[in-house]
Amino acid sequence: MNSQTSTGTMLDNTKAHELDSLFKPRSIAIIGASSKELSIGNVIIKNLVHYNYTGKIYPINLKEPEIRNIKAYPTIFDVPDEIDLAHIIIPSKFVPQIIEDCGKKGIKSVIINSAGFSEMGEEGMALQDAFLAKAKEYGVRIFGPNCQGIINADPQFNAYCDFTFTFPKPGSISIVALSGGVGAFIMQSLFDLDIGMRMYASNGNACDISISEVVTYYGEDEGTKAIILYTEGFRNPREFMDVAQKVAKQKPILAMKSGRTEEGAKAAASHTGSLAGVDIATELIFEKIGILSFDNEEEMCQAAMAFSTQPIPRGNKVGIITNTGGPAVIATDELIRCGLQLPTLSARAIQTLKETQLPEASIGNPIDVVATGGAIHFKSALDVLMDEEQIDCIYINFVTAPFTDTDEVARAIVAVNNMKRKPIVCNFMTNMSMERYQATAKILKDGGVPCYSFPTTAAKALGSLYKFHKIQSRNIGETKIFPDIDRAKVEEIIARTGINKHDTNGNLSSSGDGAFLPSADVYEILAAYGIAVADWRIVSTTDEALKAAVEIGFPVVIKAEAKAIVHKSDMGGVAINLKNEEEVTAAIGKMKLKLSSSTDLQFLVQKFLPGGRELIVGVAAQPDLEPLIMFGLGGVFVEVLKDVVFKLSPLTELEANEMLTSIKSSKLLDGVRGQKGVNKASVIDIILRVSQLVNDFPQIQEMDLNPIMAFEDRTIAVDARIKI
Amino acid sequence: MNSQTSTGTMLDNTKAHELDSLFKPRSIAIIGASSKELSIGNVIIKNLVHYNYTGKIYPINLKEPEIRNIKAYPTIFDVPDEIDLAHIIIPSKFVPQIIEDCGKKGIKSVIINSAGFSEMGEEGMALQDAFLAKAKEYGVRIFGPNCQGIINADPQFNAYCDFTFTFPKPGSISIVALSGGVGAFIMQSLFDLDIGMRMYASNGNACDISISEVVTYYGEDEGTKAIILYTEGFRNPREFMDVAQKVAKQKPILAMKSGRTEEGAKAAASHTGSLAGVDIATELIFEKIGILSFDNEEEMCQAAMAFSTQPIPRGNKVGIITNTGGPAVIATDELIRCGLQLPTLSARAIQTLKETQLPEASIGNPIDVVATGGAIHFKSALDVLMDEEQIDCIYINFVTAPFTDTDEVARAIVAVNNMKRKPIVCNFMTNMSMERYQATAKILKDGGVPCYSFPTTAAKALGSLYKFHKIQSRNIGETKIFPDIDRAKVEEIIARTGINKHDTNGNLSSSGDGAFLPSADVYEILAAYGIAVADWRIVSTTDEALKAAVEIGFPVVIKAEAKAIVHKSDMGGVAINLKNEEEVTAAIGKMKLKLSSSTDLQFLVQKFLPGGRELIVGVAAQPDLEPLIMFGLGGVFVEVLKDVVFKLSPLTELEANEMLTSIKSSKLLDGVRGQKGVNKASVIDIILRVSQLVNDFPQIQEMDLNPIMAFEDRTIAVDARIKI
Repeated sequence: MNSQTSTGTMLDNTKAHELDSLFKPRSIAIIGASSKELSIGNVIIKNLVHYNYTGKIYPINLKEPEIRNIKAYPTIFDVPDEIDLAHIIIPSKFVPQIIEDCGKKGIKSVIINSAGFSEMGEEGMALQDAFLAKAKEYGVRIFGPNCQGIINADPQFNAYCDFTFTFPKPGSISIVALSGGVGAFIMQSLFDLDIGMRMYASNGNACDISISEVVTYYGEDEGTKAIILYTEGFRNPREFMDVAQKVAKQKPILAMKSGRTEEGAKAAASHTGSLAGVDIATELIFEKIGILSFDNEEEMCQAAMAFSTQPIPRGNKVGIITNTGGPAVIATDELIRCGLQLPTLSARAIQTLKETQLPEASIGNPIDVVATGGAIHFKSALDVLMDEEQIDCIYINFVTAPFTDTDEVARAIVAVNNMKRKPIVCNFMTNMSMERYQATAKILKDGGVPCYSFPTTAAKALGSLYKFHKIQSRNIGETKIFPDIDRAKVEEIIARTGINKHDTNGNLSSSGDGAFLPSADVYEILAAYGIAVADWRIVSTTDEALKAAVEIGFPVVIKAEAKAIVHKSDMGGVAINLKNEEEVTAAIGKMKLKLSSSTDLQFLVQKFLPGGRELIVGVAAQPDLEPLIMFGLGGVFVEVLKDVVFKLSPLTELEANEMLTSIKSSKLLDGVRGQKGVNKASVIDIILRVSQLVNDFPQIQEMDLNPIMAFEDRTIAVDARIKI
Repeated sequence: MNSQTSTGTMLDNTKAHELDSLFKPRSIAIIGASSKELSIGNVIIKNLVHYNYTGKIYPINLKEPEIRNIKAYPTIFDVPDEIDLAHIIIPSKFVPQIIEDCGKKGIKSVIINSAGFSEMGEEGMALQDAFLAKAKEYGVRIFGPNCQGIINADPQFNAYCDFTFTFPKPGSISIVALSGGVGAFIMQSLFDLDIGMRMYASNGNACDISISEVVTYYGEDEGTKAIILYTEGFRNPREFMDVAQKVAKQKPILAMKSGRTEEGAKAAASHTGSLAGVDIATELIFEKIGILSFDNEEEMCQAAMAFSTQPIPRGNKVGIITNTGGPAVIATDELIRCGLQLPTLSARAIQTLKETQLPEASIGNPIDVVATGGAIHFKSALDVLMDEEQIDCIYINFVTAPFTDTDEVARAIVAVNNMKRKPIVCNFMTNMSMERYQATAKILKDGGVPCYSFPTTAAKALGSLYKFHKIQSRNIGETKIFPDIDRAKVEEIIARTGINKHDTNGNLSSSGDGAFLPSADVYEILAAYGIAVADWRIVSTTDEALKAAVEIGFPVVIKAEAKAIVHKSDMGGVAINLKNEEEVTAAIGKMKLKLSSSTDLQFLVQKFLPGGRELIVGVAAQPDLEPLIMFGLGGVFVEVLKDVVFKLSPLTELEANEMLTSIKSSKLLDGVRGQKGVNKASVIDIILRVSQLVNDFPQIQEMDLNPIMAFEDRTIAVDARIKI
């Protein structure tokens, strides 16, 4: 029994997964197989054959006895064997029936290449709903529709279930792309870089199998060392966060989200028909769960090359070896921009280099072994950097000087690279049309040295490895939960507003455009969550106002309160720095005159707190996602300089702290030009309490604490609004 | 006679240029030719032969009768022919003698490949001086030393006077690079992009023939359509500005300056031995004279490909044609980031597209002809964009869908491209290892369509074309010269300071660390140049101060003045907002007590001007270049946010205006949150007057107007210092 259990455990990695029928099919039916060259139903069969698919291929065609010399069957029911996966390439109106057939035949997964569904409006949507119902009924998993398909380059399968034209060598990078066009050129780029690929998936309308599910599958796949993800947004961001967070802890996810400009988002909407508007949430998701985000797909592919062979550096200290001057200058600039540092070498290292390098070599960091330097000089420099405690990674410029044995140099680099002690990237400057240097390139390539053609490109790739180290070593910790809050109180206030209607699943139902809560409610909610607010009273008369002002202590602010009053300042509804009873009386008098049309007119009397640093904390609810929290300095910093930072709630202390340090005007919080610094702990406390409040109450659509006054000893909100 | 004159004029373009002997040599001697394979003296001969050099090759070697099957001569005097150009590849100590020999032989240019000169310290410097003296004596022009050499790919010459390993096809881009390593990989990159090259030069220590001279030569060369320049700074920036300015008006100069980070500058200094420190001046020179600046060498080469075949767009409106969705989204994002816009198409265009495109096509901008779209669909889309008045340039995504005739599509694109009406770039997504698509690529390539492998890359290249349009259409105008200034007055003040000693050439001689002028001198200088200053008096006693304050009008500021007092505020030497005589008396009393050790104590009484917007204008002198002018908002904007802009003086009105608009906090000048906007004309006036002052008086090493108070109606400096 013991030995059996043990075997069972060992086999765990190969245990069947629901998506195995998609990515590791033992047999594939092509429903809509065609003898017409260049048609999708023909190209897919051609690709499967060309790629040496290891399973069985069953073309399905009513009339043809064989297609591309492979026996064809009139229907799937005529296939004498079990079918794991079916491609569907028939007009959309026939698809619901075919899915039912697939279900009856026991097919586990289908790839619907056909278009004509949700991307084509209501009629298509109805068809999609119809086949999905059948799929659910029979337990068939759907990939697509309106999609390319999948590829598994594992030689065990060689499953090229796609109509594209790039035939990758087996490798360790897996790709998942919302757009087939982008997925295809990323695959092509890995091919051009000669780094191979593991699996590929582009799922079009993604009506069933989602990007999240594919990412999970790649995460569990031992052969996948890194994942490349392209998207224009997520249909179900929460699901993605949940699964990708786990995967990102195991292996690097390199991602690009496009549609970052308004025009780009518009272009995205026009081709997917489902997403619109610039969403910053996707970037914030990437940041929160530790995904490496790129805004340039070429850089992403170049980085993937480094990830496919190199270890992750343990820190940001880089040593440079070069055999030419200028490219080292360019590389240095870029490495520094990526946050790396060039430490000076130890005395011992300098001594060794002096003994081993040519007299004209430049000893330091960079180490310039000069163009006449050969393998022994590269080797010595590499050994020195490998032994230097404070060096975490190595950047090499290697120009194939005609007067050196470049093969020998390449072998020296490979020997050190093989030890996998520290990551190495190489800017290899050569003429690949010359056989002599093709040989050198092959040595580097076979030795797993990532080679680039430009110093900046190589430096950026090393920068990405380092960035992943930073991501991995950033433990954001757990969401801060304050026990000293009065949740029931807030529930009661919100219930009182009468517009918080929940459906039976606990989700907030649509409540029109929402409404701003009265100030008294707002301040009570803040108080219930321990958010300090300048002392306040709501009053109706001048006498009450005077009494309130005396209780609170002068100076005070008075703000008019009435349903019709939205922009108080513009309407003459705010009077600040009222120092005595006369001023309060005068202010109330003026407001009563100006705002006499509001029959529900009341006044908020509040402590006036001048002299602090103005801050702002804002909240915006997101569909299908936790609210975004914004932080920044108030006044011109937010209004003119837009110097604010967003994060996805719920926040941890580390994240709240990062908000303070990541705004450009961060130093102002430390105090400058005679103004004292603010009490950062109390600012962080407010941010975290707001985060908890809006996560406890998803009914809150918008919330602003603006301004918050931050002082040396405390931080107090002096104005706030909440929209439900 | 007439016809002869006319012929003379027609021959102007081919008239002899001093550098023709370098770039168009009819005969080349290799002094230090070697029969040793892989030695520089052998590789250069090999390269000349391999590249089919059209002139005569004379290896010079004391012992060998022939080298690489070419007759060798013991000395240059034994060569029976005239020699245009000599390579020198012998130990540095023999070089001065050889240069004399070259002079005697009548050789016009030499390329000194040998190292061991100024880059190697004093001894090498002495050798360099020695051979330069000989060169001057005999009128020999020197290229190098310690350099690669030149290449002229014009088939008339095929002069490969270099030891590198890339053999370019003839093209229209010429390269000049401070670093041979960088020059070589740029040349290789153009080779890999298959766009050919015109001329190449990398001049190492550049002791005689400078980058400026080479740029001038390229400027006059009709075959050069665009110039690529790499540098780490300029030895003689004024010379460069003068010549490059003229060239940049004729043809695009694409430039990259490295050593932008401190560490990069250090690396640059270590390999050139001549430059150090981060200079921002080079970038400002590029900006001022209209050079396209890059911080990524790969992007620069990719842009060069577009410049080599495409016209410059007349505006920023781009039309996109795509046959795949996602890549159009990525391209849109990047095009927008580059400042391009996607206009909506005219009703007529939409109508035409509806009639000509497939039903599933997406009609708009981008135009998605979909993957099944063929040549007629691309052609119709291209025609529509060519005819659209408001479209200035065209971006194409072309994925080689297996089910289309991609050659036909390519031919359709080429047909439109051949008209050269609007620039076109193409992101061509294909598998170049497949013969079928190689053919398609060749059609595009031969048709002069710049093709890229990534949407972002293609978009950036189009962005560069547009950026050059912007540069070309930006007429900065002439330097503003104010007539209402009193130059003699400033001369007198500076003469009075006694530290402005000029050498016989009119250059300012070193005067130690310089010194700050007394406030009275500073304010008089400003007044002489019409720069408004808050009314002021210098006084010695309390009585005088009171009299001055009454004259000026309260409130006033009082600042202590004494040689030993540098940081007035820190030493209690500043009192602001003094509203009456008592406050003035008290302030003076306090300062006298605190600063009693200064026997030369005086007081500056100045009008206090609160409530304006604080600005700062600064000046920093540059070695061998006009001073830099800095502008920004004062206070935290300069101190914390570093939101300042630099420009190279002398300034034009347009440039001064650009300074106001290019700071991030620019909007604050328009007035926000109740504060009124400033009078921009008066701010520009001050900037321009400062520019004129510091250009009239290069003795001024530093100058700060900080703060300047800007109001709705006027702008007045309230504190200033000048260092001579």
